[in-house]
Amino acid sequence: MRNQPIPTALLEFIKANDEKAIQDFCASLHPASVGDVLGALSSQELWHVLTLLEPRLRAEIFGALDQSLQIEMAETLRRQDLAQIVNHMSADERVDLLKRLPEDKQEALLPALAQAEREDIRRLSSYAEETAGAVMTSDYATLSPDQTVSEALSKLRREAPDKETIYYSYVLDSDRKLVGLVSLRDLILARPDKRIDELMHRDIIYAFVTDDQEDAARKIAKYDLIALPVVNSSKALVGIITHDDAIDIINQEHTEDMEKFMAITGSHETGTYLKTSSWGHFKNRCVWLVALAALGLVSGYIVQNYEGLLIQFAVLATFMPMLADTGGNSGSQSATLVVRALAVREISTGDILKVLWKEFKVAVPLAVMLGVLAFGRVLFFAEGSSRPEGQSLSTIGLAIAAALGLQVLTATMIGALLPLAAAKLKFDPAVVASPALTTIVDITGLFIFFTTATLILGI
Amino acid sequence: MRNQPIPTALLEFIKANDEKAIQDFCASLHPASVGDVLGALSSQELWHVLTLLEPRLRAEIFGALDQSLQIEMAETLRRQDLAQIVNHMSADERVDLLKRLPEDKQEALLPALAQAEREDIRRLSSYAEETAGAVMTSDYATLSPDQTVSEALSKLRREAPDKETIYYSYVLDSDRKLVGLVSLRDLILARPDKRIDELMHRDIIYAFVTDDQEDAARKIAKYDLIALPVVNSSKALVGIITHDDAIDIINQEHTEDMEKFMAITGSHETGTYLKTSSWGHFKNRCVWLVALAALGLVSGYIVQNYEGLLIQFAVLATFMPMLADTGGNSGSQSATLVVRALAVREISTGDILKVLWKEFKVAVPLAVMLGVLAFGRVLFFAEGSSRPEGQSLSTIGLAIAAALGLQVLTATMIGALLPLAAAKLKFDPAVVASPALTTIVDITGLFIFFTTATLILGI
Repeated sequence: MRNQPIPTALLEFIKANDEKAIQDFCASLHPASVGDVLGALSSQELWHVLTLLEPRLRAEIFGALDQSLQIEMAETLRRQDLAQIVNHMSADERVDLLKRLPEDKQEALLPALAQAEREDIRRLSSYAEETAGAVMTSDYATLSPDQTVSEALSKLRREAPDKETIYYSYVLDSDRKLVGLVSLRDLILARPDKRIDELMHRDIIYAFVTDDQEDAARKIAKYDLIALPVVNSSKALVGIITHDDAIDIINQEHTEDMEKFMAITGSHETGTYLKTSSWGHFKNRCVWLVALAALGLVSGYIVQNYEGLLIQFAVLATFMPMLADTGGNSGSQSATLVVRALAVREISTGDILKVLWKEFKVAVPLAVMLGVLAFGRVLFFAEGSSRPEGQSLSTIGLAIAAALGLQVLTATMIGALLPLAAAKLKFDPAVVASPALTTIVDITGLFIFFTTATLILGI
Repeated sequence: MRNQPIPTALLEFIKANDEKAIQDFCASLHPASVGDVLGALSSQELWHVLTLLEPRLRAEIFGALDQSLQIEMAETLRRQDLAQIVNHMSADERVDLLKRLPEDKQEALLPALAQAEREDIRRLSSYAEETAGAVMTSDYATLSPDQTVSEALSKLRREAPDKETIYYSYVLDSDRKLVGLVSLRDLILARPDKRIDELMHRDIIYAFVTDDQEDAARKIAKYDLIALPVVNSSKALVGIITHDDAIDIINQEHTEDMEKFMAITGSHETGTYLKTSSWGHFKNRCVWLVALAALGLVSGYIVQNYEGLLIQFAVLATFMPMLADTGGNSGSQSATLVVRALAVREISTGDILKVLWKEFKVAVPLAVMLGVLAFGRVLFFAEGSSRPEGQSLSTIGLAIAAALGLQVLTATMIGALLPLAAAKLKFDPAVVASPALTTIVDITGLFIFFTTATLILGI
């Protein structure tokens, strides 16, 4: 039993050139663990270790390496060596790798692959990014309705090594239409002479090739599936998405949401923070920073317009940054909840009135509470600050309290509205969230602040 | 084949009181689908439907209902009825439900449960929240090393209905120590007379009961597991966490991260936005809003201190909100990336120097770029704004550019540093992120702005 890779053992075997020990080491551990250990080697050592392994294991471990390392190696390997690995990789990993290779390398590689693999790659890479079609694998197990349980079991035994999972088998009619599902659990519990169509579940949860990958992953999560079948428009089975892919998709979407939320552009891959170059990070961040900085100047102009008011009432200036921050914070809170509820499919754009009403009911007490606190703050602690003769502290307190309350109320509503509007317009809700929102409610907030102050203070 | 629940059919069966049709409907669909459909019924109708089903299916569908609905029903059902359901639920769902019931209800229920279930509940609920122990189930399949494959298969056939999964069986020695793993795939591929210890994988990925649930879930994701065994300190097997629980954990942690990130306190459950009362939302949001508003007043005092400067150089006021926003945005960007990299275990607190160096390399060009843009902006478009005699636009431009550059640089570094510091102090990194950070870099930013301006403008 072991929880951490033990790279030192392998390094010693390599040093001693003990081929048998290297082979045993790689065969005895989980491919992902071996991948971790090998990832620390030089590419030459890494390739030396891989050549010692039998082709299937070699491809499995290669597929478990970091994708950037896979690509680096693919670019230096001889074509035949690469082709052999690619031929033995699982269908979805193969397509993933090929899509990321330079085009000339792809072209060079395709003729060296077996006919079936070539067609499979063409088909799988034809689906749009982030669809169920683009992430599915074609290594699934199928049965026909008229097979018996014992026939099915022998078929699965024969095919097991090539299939991503044999725990679910999909039952297809003569047109390859998906008509049923049997689990391996069903099969080993059933009488050997029972027919598959007496046994199979007919209520199948599935996705279409064109469905969003995240919707597919959420189905796997909701229905606790080991794999989700993917069908084309005529309901023929064309692939499956497995439970481990679902976790990867959900992680990727989480990273994407968080980064978009904080105004970071780019590819949003998980686990690539340190690997991404400084220049890459720079590019991903600069666009929004500049755009928002430009938008931020609008707040400046508003402040400039009310210069005279600020000079008269220095106490207003004290509350200005707090007002902007509080608006940004309350807007970010509602935006976060709405973006998240949209992401987990709890709400849809049709729920807009329900959401706005809920946010209104939350925002009113928040606004009242913060307003009352601000009023108290002015009344009890702003005695000394400069103000024109004849203006009572309580009027000023009222003006600040009213402005803050209105700011919290509008910012909360805008925070809920923006992601819903973005979703309605088929943009990603996360992208209009926090930083953009903060800058927007800064502008509305300052406008509210100065308008309210002018009205209440009668200037 | 069907992708959406079809509640109308069921409603008609209920109206017609067609018990057979109701039973068939519930048995033919996935329990999660049935749960969706039943969730729309009144609790009386819902209970009527459940009573028509055989106990195991009833418990399975009950377990698929929304947790709030489960609790609502649990509080109204007769003790025997509830006990029967609870007895048939899977071990982890049962503990989850019981933990959320009021204590008197728990006490009342326990004596009505079978002895084995009672002990199981006591054991499972003794682990701290958010540990692997608290989310594991005790419904796992075990084998002993000296069994043959055919003996193992008959044992699994007998036990299958009570186990969460039979696709992985765990091999225990006489002390219940975990010594191996065989998959059902291995078993059906092996010769029937082969011994389990010749077949089993000895390199097992596992978690300890006290491990963080998220670490356990990340292991399931990394190693593509269907289930992860959980052991106690003496390496004895005490439970498993299944792949579907891993997705739930990852989703829950993500919701938690996003909400903490946006300064929302509370339980951070996924998919509960609409169900949470306005009062609940209010409570979750008000603490941080008030705390940050109080902190925001510090920025106000800084502004107030430099009132004189602002009156002389109105152009500075124009750039003030932009400076605060840009600092908040660049800090949020680095904080997001660091929080996410910590969450997916790409980096740890030990990588602090690597992270700071990376952020420094990203922040310098961002600072230079934004500084240059601000300088150009002042030079070309601020001709008309009021400034004292003898101060050239380019000096003012330089002051603003330098302040903005420094602000971006410090905010980016603070954004990276805060989550790492929080993680080091065993706080959740997400909690010090966006809103708190925005407010902090507002303060540092205004301080930088006025200090730089005073120095460069020589006042």
